[in-house]
Amino acid sequence: MPETIPEDSVGLVEGAVERFDEPLELESGERLERFELAYETYGTLNADHSNAVLVCHALSGDQHAAGYQSMEDRKPGWWDNMIGPGKPLDTRRFFVVCVNVLGSCKGSTGPASTNPGTGEPYALDFPIVTVKDWVASQRRLMERMGIAKWVAVVGGSLGGMQALQWTIDYPDCLDACLAIAAAPKLSAQNIAFNEVARQAIMTDPEFHGGRYYERDTPRRGLALARMIGHITYLSEDAMRDKFGRDLRKGQPLSYGFDVDFEVESYLRYQGRRFVDRFDANSYLYLTKVLDYFDPAGAHDGDLSQAFARSDNRFLVIAFSSDWRFSAERSREITHALYANNLDVTFAEIEAPQGHDAFLLKIGPYHDMVRAYMDHLAREWGL
Amino acid sequence: MPETIPEDSVGLVEGAVERFDEPLELESGERLERFELAYETYGTLNADHSNAVLVCHALSGDQHAAGYQSMEDRKPGWWDNMIGPGKPLDTRRFFVVCVNVLGSCKGSTGPASTNPGTGEPYALDFPIVTVKDWVASQRRLMERMGIAKWVAVVGGSLGGMQALQWTIDYPDCLDACLAIAAAPKLSAQNIAFNEVARQAIMTDPEFHGGRYYERDTPRRGLALARMIGHITYLSEDAMRDKFGRDLRKGQPLSYGFDVDFEVESYLRYQGRRFVDRFDANSYLYLTKVLDYFDPAGAHDGDLSQAFARSDNRFLVIAFSSDWRFSAERSREITHALYANNLDVTFAEIEAPQGHDAFLLKIGPYHDMVRAYMDHLAREWGL
Repeated sequence: MPETIPEDSVGLVEGAVERFDEPLELESGERLERFELAYETYGTLNADHSNAVLVCHALSGDQHAAGYQSMEDRKPGWWDNMIGPGKPLDTRRFFVVCVNVLGSCKGSTGPASTNPGTGEPYALDFPIVTVKDWVASQRRLMERMGIAKWVAVVGGSLGGMQALQWTIDYPDCLDACLAIAAAPKLSAQNIAFNEVARQAIMTDPEFHGGRYYERDTPRRGLALARMIGHITYLSEDAMRDKFGRDLRKGQPLSYGFDVDFEVESYLRYQGRRFVDRFDANSYLYLTKVLDYFDPAGAHDGDLSQAFARSDNRFLVIAFSSDWRFSAERSREITHALYANNLDVTFAEIEAPQGHDAFLLKIGPYHDMVRAYMDHLAREWGL
Repeated sequence: MPETIPEDSVGLVEGAVERFDEPLELESGERLERFELAYETYGTLNADHSNAVLVCHALSGDQHAAGYQSMEDRKPGWWDNMIGPGKPLDTRRFFVVCVNVLGSCKGSTGPASTNPGTGEPYALDFPIVTVKDWVASQRRLMERMGIAKWVAVVGGSLGGMQALQWTIDYPDCLDACLAIAAAPKLSAQNIAFNEVARQAIMTDPEFHGGRYYERDTPRRGLALARMIGHITYLSEDAMRDKFGRDLRKGQPLSYGFDVDFEVESYLRYQGRRFVDRFDANSYLYLTKVLDYFDPAGAHDGDLSQAFARSDNRFLVIAFSSDWRFSAERSREITHALYANNLDVTFAEIEAPQGHDAFLLKIGPYHDMVRAYMDHLAREWGL
């Protein structure tokens, strides 16, 4: 709980939900007859609706990107260091929108939602969605809000993939794309980690083919999935600096199967905590969204063709120690953009923290986003 | 099944088991009242017992390092490309011994063995063993065989750790140590992967606190553990080259939770297959052996002091794409040896295959081991 709300915070925030009754045709060929999107906004939409920025969240994120939902919150939203008055996404100038993705479990329609056809939760009857579908659903919300063009669409990791997809599908609906710690598609190794996570969930006896909502939840499998994820979010160096081989509470080796090392204790805690706040089916859907993202796939693997319609400008940022989506993957994106003669700024930020760096307040990184956004604000007369 | 046994094979091999009735005092402070060691040998021990080489196996290996146990075997032992007539560990000159480690499940005493105190399988009552304990047990077998000194102790990965431990505890009992793709201790990331694997096994409802032998086996957990391991054995490039993002059998995306990509199918297969040949409790014990290996620990982290009593010579080999035990870890070993003015040859072999490279027939790697062993043979008059 914050004793008082910090001055550079967006403060107490209230979420909203919009319902859409026109069916959404999905990339899979299926359709979602109707759906809801949960979102939060920070700052004020100006009179001509020209100061809107869309922030896209990553795998285990949600629409609560900044501020506090109540005075009892221990922590603010996941990107509170980036969004607020005087922060890089400055809410004194910009109206920032963050939408929970379809398939997630924080208020937007997903596998835990009621299937109108059966009156039961969808579970695995929820259709497979993709980054393209997400962007199409966000486009609906944009229309509903009366916003014609985003000043920028901004995201890290899976959020960066959404930002890129906006420039592919709706290039006229945004000016700038900020794709941070993203990749043009998953590597075989990335897919392998996702597959082990899914197997952990789906082989948990409490999974019951996804129909666990009335009973327990596959907590063991979901905790394992989260533990696997966490290993890939940190660099080896970050893990060493954070835990080394430190024994828990300085105790001697247990010579048993209890926790010996701090890193074990950390992972078990992260696993347990995640189970309380995330739905296992949603984790399955969201890892599939990652696996399926491959905009070059429709162009015989030529990524530059995927951006052929784009006339956007791009800020592409990677982190030196990120081994989940390495800087090399960001360079692939950058080269494809250059091939289209687009306005691209690329930076590889020296940072030891691994993939998680995109969530952290790292000086050169935040300075770069701030300068880029300030420049956009000036051009847009904000 | 081999149609015919290849000429450079050690041929059909028969294992042996030795029983030791004198208690083994373990590093944990516990003792093993009696134990058995299962092993295989290749080549012929010469009259003065001066041509013996010990090969140490890694996490999921066993004593069956070369040749065929029957004409029905589909594959030879795990290091058949290294051991045989005319191969780098040339059985025309050397008598090669490979011992199943304590705690494993291939004939040496381990958690699946009968606890003489209860008449039941030990399960988790089996004491925690360490690399030091393994080497002490191998020393007993060496005495039993009437071997005073190994020409060399050779191992890859966890096997390389055993080879190093020999030079620390019994430097007079061997001439050369060949430590391949090893590390002086596990990193926090290595421990993290082991911990997730253990959690997968121990949270499997079929685990029953390790007392599953009369019932089923925690196959889901063990399969997950193996899948996690496999990701760390291959380099990202090796995975890309092996699987890319190829869809299984060239089929379109399933838009469901069946297998889409080849790498998923590969991992599921590896997981299933491992369950048929390995004991889950043994996997717990062997990963703990890895976590606990830290010869510098007794010397305030100064690895060079660990080798203070050694007067052995060393061949240290690392592989460029190994991210489980990177070349940097082998350099740490090498520097500690140099600090003791020891005779050290170090090579980082360019190989894209990752950690698994130590098992593969890679020209420069095998040439180096061959030349080193030939040199030893000449010095020993073999």
